[in-house]
Amino acid sequence: MADIRVTVWNENEHEKTIEAVKQIYPNGMHNAIREGLEKAGGFKVRCATQDMPEHGLTQEVLDDTDVLFWWGHCKHEEVADEIVDRVQKRVLEGMGLICLHSAHFSKIFRRMLGTTCSLKWREAGERERLWNIEPGHPITEGIGEYFELPHVEMYGERFDIPDPDKVIFISWYQGGEVFRSGVTFERGYGRIFYFSPGHETFPIFYDENIRKVLANAARWAAPRIIKEHVCPFVEPLENIKKS
Amino acid sequence: MADIRVTVWNENEHEKTIEAVKQIYPNGMHNAIREGLEKAGGFKVRCATQDMPEHGLTQEVLDDTDVLFWWGHCKHEEVADEIVDRVQKRVLEGMGLICLHSAHFSKIFRRMLGTTCSLKWREAGERERLWNIEPGHPITEGIGEYFELPHVEMYGERFDIPDPDKVIFISWYQGGEVFRSGVTFERGYGRIFYFSPGHETFPIFYDENIRKVLANAARWAAPRIIKEHVCPFVEPLENIKKS
Amino acid sequence: MADIRVTVWNENEHEKTIEAVKQIYPNGMHNAIREGLEKAGGFKVRCATQDMPEHGLTQEVLDDTDVLFWWGHCKHEEVADEIVDRVQKRVLEGMGLICLHSAHFSKIFRRMLGTTCSLKWREAGERERLWNIEPGHPITEGIGEYFELPHVEMYGERFDIPDPDKVIFISWYQGGEVFRSGVTFERGYGRIFYFSPGHETFPIFYDENIRKVLANAARWAAPRIIKEHVCPFVEPLENIKKS
Amino acid sequence: MADIRVTVWNENEHEKTIEAVKQIYPNGMHNAIREGLEKAGGFKVRCATQDMPEHGLTQEVLDDTDVLFWWGHCKHEEVADEIVDRVQKRVLEGMGLICLHSAHFSKIFRRMLGTTCSLKWREAGERERLWNIEPGHPITEGIGEYFELPHVEMYGERFDIPDPDKVIFISWYQGGEVFRSGVTFERGYGRIFYFSPGHETFPIFYDENIRKVLANAARWAAPRIIKEHVCPFVEPLENIKKS
Repeated sequence: MADIRVTVWNENEHEKTIEAVKQIYPNGMHNAIREGLEKAGGFKVRCATQDMPEHGLTQEVLDDTDVLFWWGHCKHEEVADEIVDRVQKRVLEGMGLICLHSAHFSKIFRRMLGTTCSLKWREAGERERLWNIEPGHPITEGIGEYFELPHVEMYGERFDIPDPDKVIFISWYQGGEVFRSGVTFERGYGRIFYFSPGHETFPIFYDENIRKVLANAARWAAPRIIKEHVCPFVEPLENIKKS
Repeated sequence: MADIRVTVWNENEHEKTIEAVKQIYPNGMHNAIREGLEKAGGFKVRCATQDMPEHGLTQEVLDDTDVLFWWGHCKHEEVADEIVDRVQKRVLEGMGLICLHSAHFSKIFRRMLGTTCSLKWREAGERERLWNIEPGHPITEGIGEYFELPHVEMYGERFDIPDPDKVIFISWYQGGEVFRSGVTFERGYGRIFYFSPGHETFPIFYDENIRKVLANAARWAAPRIIKEHVCPFVEPLENIKKS
Repeated sequence: MADIRVTVWNENEHEKTIEAVKQIYPNGMHNAIREGLEKAGGFKVRCATQDMPEHGLTQEVLDDTDVLFWWGHCKHEEVADEIVDRVQKRVLEGMGLICLHSAHFSKIFRRMLGTTCSLKWREAGERERLWNIEPGHPITEGIGEYFELPHVEMYGERFDIPDPDKVIFISWYQGGEVFRSGVTFERGYGRIFYFSPGHETFPIFYDENIRKVLANAARWAAPRIIKEHVCPFVEPLENIKKS
Repeated sequence: MADIRVTVWNENEHEKTIEAVKQIYPNGMHNAIREGLEKAGGFKVRCATQDMPEHGLTQEVLDDTDVLFWWGHCKHEEVADEIVDRVQKRVLEGMGLICLHSAHFSKIFRRMLGTTCSLKWREAGERERLWNIEPGHPITEGIGEYFELPHVEMYGERFDIPDPDKVIFISWYQGGEVFRSGVTFERGYGRIFYFSPGHETFPIFYDENIRKVLANAARWAAPRIIKEHVCPFVEPLENIKKS
C-alpha cells in the first residue's frame, strides 16, 4: 500500500512568541506531530504554516494531500477565506481532516460543521483521563480502556457541535467537567476527526498514546475515493408517459 | 399556547418574470405558504422577500421569529453574507429553519450543513410518490403511508448532505430515481427541516398534504429554548491539587 | 390535553429485604417515583410490581399505559419471557419506556437494544455530577448546565449500548469515571429513555432535579401514534410491464 | 493479511423442495455466495445449513468465523434459541454479520435490532434499481451510482428497523415503492450489514454487482477486535474523600 500523504498545518505563532512554548516545541508543534507520524510509519508527511504564501495550502499541496492536520489558536481570523473554501472543497471531495485542540474555533472546522463549536475552558494544569468509548474503532487501535494526561487545559461541555457520527473518547477532568474529546464526522466524501488534547504549554504531542491516536486517525481518515460534487441535469431512466 | 411566529422568506423573482409562475402564484409563493399556515391555525405569519432592505430579515424581524421558511433559486448568490451570518446565529440559538425545494443550494442551508448539497435534477413534469418513513414523527401527523404529486421537478440522489437526524420521506420518481425528500437536522439549539417539493411551475404549495407537512414542520421546529452560545472561562468545581 | 397514563413498574425486592432501603423507601421506590410525577401534574399514575400476577403487566394494563417506567435489579431473570414479549410489542407499537439505574440489565432493555448493556460499577457513595449536553431537549427542561447527586453508585464506561439517538447527560464521578447517564433511543414507534441514577440505598427519587427529568421524560416518551407492525403483501401502484 | 474467515449459513430448504429454485441453485444459494467470495479472493469460506447438528454453528465454528452470512425464509422459527444466543454473543464480541433478503425476519436479525423488521412485499418479477447513496463507503467500492436487477421480489417501506448507522443503498421499484436496501449497524464490537436482494427464484447471487457488494461487505464487517463484554466492579482511580 502506498504511503498516506499527510500535511500537518500549524498556525506556528505561540512557538515563536512564548518562551515556554518555544522550549517545549523548538521546531514547532507541526514537527512534533510529523515526528510521531513518521515513527509510526506508512506516512509521507509535509508541514505547512500560516505565514507561508497561501498559508502553505496551494491547490497543488491539497491535491497531493490525503489527510490534513490542523492546529490554530490566536490567528484563526487571519486565515484567508479563499483558502478555507479550497480546503472545504477538498474535504468534501474526500480528503481527511483532523482538527486538534483550539482548532475547534478554526474557520475550517466551523465551516465544515455549521455550528459555533463553543465550549468551556480553563488553564489550571489539571489531570485529564480520556475514556475509550469505542474499543473496536480503528482510531483506538492499541489504546486501552483509558489513558491519562497529567497536565492539560480543560475543555468542557457543552460542546456546540452537531451530533457526531461516533463519540470515540469522553474525557474526565480533575476539576469536575467532562468532554467529548474525540469525535468523528463525515461530510461529503471526507472524514473528519476532532481531538481535543494539544495545548501548547504542555508536551502533549510527544505523548505515546496521543501519537498512537493521531497515526490511527490519519489511517482512518485517508480517502476511499476522491470525487467532485456536481449537480447534473439527467435524462429519465424510465419511460415517462405524460398523464 | 401562544401562536408560533413564522416568517416566510421568498426570493420572489420567478413570480415577477415568468408568466406561467405568475399565473399559479399571483401573490408569490410566500403568500401561498402563508395561507396554508393560517388555515392550519396556531401561527402568526409574516412574509419577507429578497428585494426588501436587508432582505426583510432585520435583527428585529429575526428576534420576533420562531420559525423561518426559505425559498430561493436563481438569486442565491445575491443574498448578503451578513444576513446569512445573522440567520445562522439565530438558528444556532434556537430558531427553526425550514428550507424548501431549490433552497437546497441557498447560502443559509449550505452554511448550516457544511456540504455542497448537490443533487440530480430534471424538469419533465413526472409523478412523485413521497413515502412516509416515520409515521410516528410529528412532521407526518395526518399523513398516510405515502402521498403523490402528479407533476414535479425531479430531485435525485446522491444528495450531498450530512447524515440526517431523521429521514422522514423518501421519494419515488416515475423516471427512475429516489430521493431523501424530507430530512431533519439539529444544529446548535435550532431544528432544521429540508423538504424537496415546491417547484415554481407547479401548484404544489396549494396541495393539502404539502400544507399539512409544512404546518407540522413549523410546529416541530418551534424553539424549546433561545440561548446564546458563549465560550466561557470557568473556575474548577472540584479542588485541584497540583501533583 | 388528557393526562398521560403512566405505569411505574418495580421489582420491589430490596425494599422488603434490606433495612436501609426500607427506611428510605417505606412504600417502595415505585411510590416515590409516582409521587414525583403526581406533584409535577398531568399524569395518571399506577404502579405494578414483580410479585403481582403477570408481574402486574396484563395486556389490559399495557393497553392503558402511555409510558412505562422500569426498575429492577436482583430478579431480572425471574421476569417471564412472555411478559417481556408483550412489553416489547407494545413499545414497538408506540408506548414509551423509561429504564432506570440497574434496569440496564433488565430483560426488556436488553431486548429492545440487542446488546449486553454491560458497564463498570462501584458502590462507594461518591459524588456524581450530571452534565446537561442537550439544553434544548424536552427532557432537560428546567435543568441547568449540570446538577449533582451527593452519594451514588458509580456506573462507568464503556456502556455496551448501540449509539443513542441523543446523549442527553454525561456524568462525571469523583472516583474518576464518566458515563452516558441519560440516553434516548427510538424503536418501532416507541421512544426509550435510559437514566442511570437511582441506586436503592440513596434517596435519589426524592431529588428535585431527578423528579424534573423523570416528568420531562414521561412527557417526551408519550406516544404520537399507537400502531401495529404488519408485513403485508401489496399490489403494485404502477403498471408493471413484463420485459 | 490473513484471509477473512467467512461462514455462509443457509436455511437450504427451497433448494430442496422447489424445482425452480433447484434449477437456479443446484448446490444451494450458500454455494453460489461462496463461489462469489472465492472468486473475489482473500476469503476462506465454509458453509453451514440449518439441517446440520447445531445448525452447523457450533462454538468451534463461530470461534473460527470472522464474518457470518445468513439466508433464511420459511424455517426461521425452527432455529434453536440457544444457537441464536450463541451467534448474538459472538457478534457483540466482534464477529461481522451479513443478513440477506428474507433474513430480515430471522431470529438473529430481529434479536440484534430489537424491532419487528416488518416491511411490504410483492412477488411480481419487477425491476429494481439500487441507488448508491454512499459512494465513499467501503461496501460500494467498484459500484457505480446505481445498478439494476431485472427481476426481483419487491421489499418496500416502511421497514421497521432502528435508524441505521449508514444507509448505503436505496432501491427504486418499477411498481412504485422505495426501500432502504443496504443498511449498516454496529452492535457491541460487531458490524452488521443488511442487504435486501436475494430472492430464491431469481439468479441474484450470480450477479456481478451483488457479488462485489457481498465481498466488500465481508471485508468491511471483519472484526477489528474480538472482546468479551463484562460488567466489572472497579476500584476508584481517584481518592474519594467522603463529604
